[in-house]
Amino acid sequence: MNSELSSQQIQDIGEQGLLERLQRFCPPEIIGDDAAVLVTAPEQSLVVTTDVLVDGVHFSNLTTSPEDAGWRAAAANLSDLAAMGASPLGITVGLGLPGEVRVSWVERLYQGITECLQKYNTSIVGGDVVRSPVTTLAITAFGQVSPHRIIRRSAAVVGHAIVITGVHGASRAGLELLLHPELGQDLKDVEKTDLIRAHQRPQPRLDVLPILQKILNSQSKIVRLSEAKVQNLKSKIPVAGMDSSDGLADAIIQICRASNVGAVLQRRQISLPAAFDHWLTQEQALEYALYGGEDFELVLCLPQESASALVQHLGQGAAIVGKITSGSTVLLHDEEKKFPNQVLSLSQGFQHFSQ
Amino acid sequence: MNSELSSQQIQDIGEQGLLERLQRFCPPEIIGDDAAVLVTAPEQSLVVTTDVLVDGVHFSNLTTSPEDAGWRAAAANLSDLAAMGASPLGITVGLGLPGEVRVSWVERLYQGITECLQKYNTSIVGGDVVRSPVTTLAITAFGQVSPHRIIRRSAAVVGHAIVITGVHGASRAGLELLLHPELGQDLKDVEKTDLIRAHQRPQPRLDVLPILQKILNSQSKIVRLSEAKVQNLKSKIPVAGMDSSDGLADAIIQICRASNVGAVLQRRQISLPAAFDHWLTQEQALEYALYGGEDFELVLCLPQESASALVQHLGQGAAIVGKITSGSTVLLHDEEKKFPNQVLSLSQGFQHFSQ
Repeated sequence: MNSELSSQQIQDIGEQGLLERLQRFCPPEIIGDDAAVLVTAPEQSLVVTTDVLVDGVHFSNLTTSPEDAGWRAAAANLSDLAAMGASPLGITVGLGLPGEVRVSWVERLYQGITECLQKYNTSIVGGDVVRSPVTTLAITAFGQVSPHRIIRRSAAVVGHAIVITGVHGASRAGLELLLHPELGQDLKDVEKTDLIRAHQRPQPRLDVLPILQKILNSQSKIVRLSEAKVQNLKSKIPVAGMDSSDGLADAIIQICRASNVGAVLQRRQISLPAAFDHWLTQEQALEYALYGGEDFELVLCLPQESASALVQHLGQGAAIVGKITSGSTVLLHDEEKKFPNQVLSLSQGFQHFSQ
Repeated sequence: MNSELSSQQIQDIGEQGLLERLQRFCPPEIIGDDAAVLVTAPEQSLVVTTDVLVDGVHFSNLTTSPEDAGWRAAAANLSDLAAMGASPLGITVGLGLPGEVRVSWVERLYQGITECLQKYNTSIVGGDVVRSPVTTLAITAFGQVSPHRIIRRSAAVVGHAIVITGVHGASRAGLELLLHPELGQDLKDVEKTDLIRAHQRPQPRLDVLPILQKILNSQSKIVRLSEAKVQNLKSKIPVAGMDSSDGLADAIIQICRASNVGAVLQRRQISLPAAFDHWLTQEQALEYALYGGEDFELVLCLPQESASALVQHLGQGAAIVGKITSGSTVLLHDEEKKFPNQVLSLSQGFQHFSQ
């Protein structure tokens, strides 16, 4: 270890710099998706994902009840499983707690976690509780998936459609309303409640997986191949994707980077909460949708025909928002030519270690 | 939630009290062993275990290098898998770090983790790194096992022998030498080094599993049953057990409680590090062996014949230390009658939340 390195602090290199250094301790084939995939049997893969949440950094009693903090933590991990095409098997919960935390706070946290898990027919299967100067929540979720149904970021194909499974921007709008209640003057009460709920109780899109598989299977059959060839074809229909937890723009850019492709998005196709129409400017609404994050929808790239069928089945804000192109740029295009074309780039993002 | 409950703090009810309250959020069938078991396929079970370690509570730069902290954290989780009879598939590492932690510290921690994992042919398969006011390490390990080979605490049978897979007390002795270097005057340098190494680099006993299975399979064949019956019998040979991470006394008492049985232990059969002979009184040596903890050996209950074969194969401190009895007491017996019989009980243990 050279001396330059040994004198550096985490805050000098930031989260991304640290992750790059730590990745050399992991097998390269498991890096780069929402979760790791381990083959446990010929037709079964184990999918594993983990998150650490720290009081004051990732949640706070000021904006989040313990029930909501629990729900959100569970939902984020289940969303990572959904993003890989995997059905949940369970989660473990590691908890670090100061001695003065109220027992009822911890029980309410667990209540929120289990409410979310129950909705998706899964449960807490293990855990650890230790003393810590700061409340810390470490969740590991695991799921299973047939190897040919794994959804990877790196599988996007030029010409395929880009599908979003629901509206974007609602979670960010809900957070703004929680932080600045005075902002919602132009909103009806039910609109406010819905936006805040989108932030407090995000819904991981595990419900999309069986619909997606049904469509892919039926699309395979349409081409009338022998059964053996259908099997072969099924395993060859590549679905690329990830969740939009870090924002819609981030998801599309990550998929394009991992797949060495570009994309063109149609500005008007990006579905927004109806309340945005009479509340936000078009620029503000798009900003929330592209960069707001935590909508926990899926962003999927698949053949046009399958994409149309999927959007029709899902309804409720699901849309084809663009298509995969050759090249490497992600272009935002306005059909109405009201706004100039725009190349999307990753915002610098939240550098967890910067002071 | 009643008002009495909501005013209580974690430090009022302690770790055990908190765990009891949180267990109602988990499926009852997965509680009570070193790790949770999930069935993923007819002949395959997934075993999951998790630990949270906090700087200043579970490790400290004063007594532990980052490499050793990493090794010990990985070893403790692999030991939980071994205690269930499971082979490791991988671990996830969740890391909370203050910005001023040195990059080299984190790399050395990961170096220690991966050195341990490599020895047991497994690896880090996922993780998360976040900002936190206190360095926190959350490890989740998963492994797999055939359902009929799962080792459970609750499977002990009256008359079966109790096997320990190696010496006990070395880790605690090593810790004492680290904390009080002046204590080791009567020890040779190599003895000191070995005891300290037992504390810094504990060895999870995954190596025991294939030997155990080979012995159980060959014992089944000796009774010359038809192949179908052998299969049936194999699934019926109950091996109870856990690891001795919280001390040998704790392990035997936990097994007895979970199995509704008692045990009698032969004081002279408990194997100790050779250095104890000319360093510690018999009382002190036994105290370290029974209550010291962190030896990470396995404590297994199995038929006498299999137990003898296992001890012979393992060597190096492996021993039959007693047998399972009816009743509920765990009795420590001195064959030489130099010490009176003694009923073992769980020491109050380390109450993580007491101030």
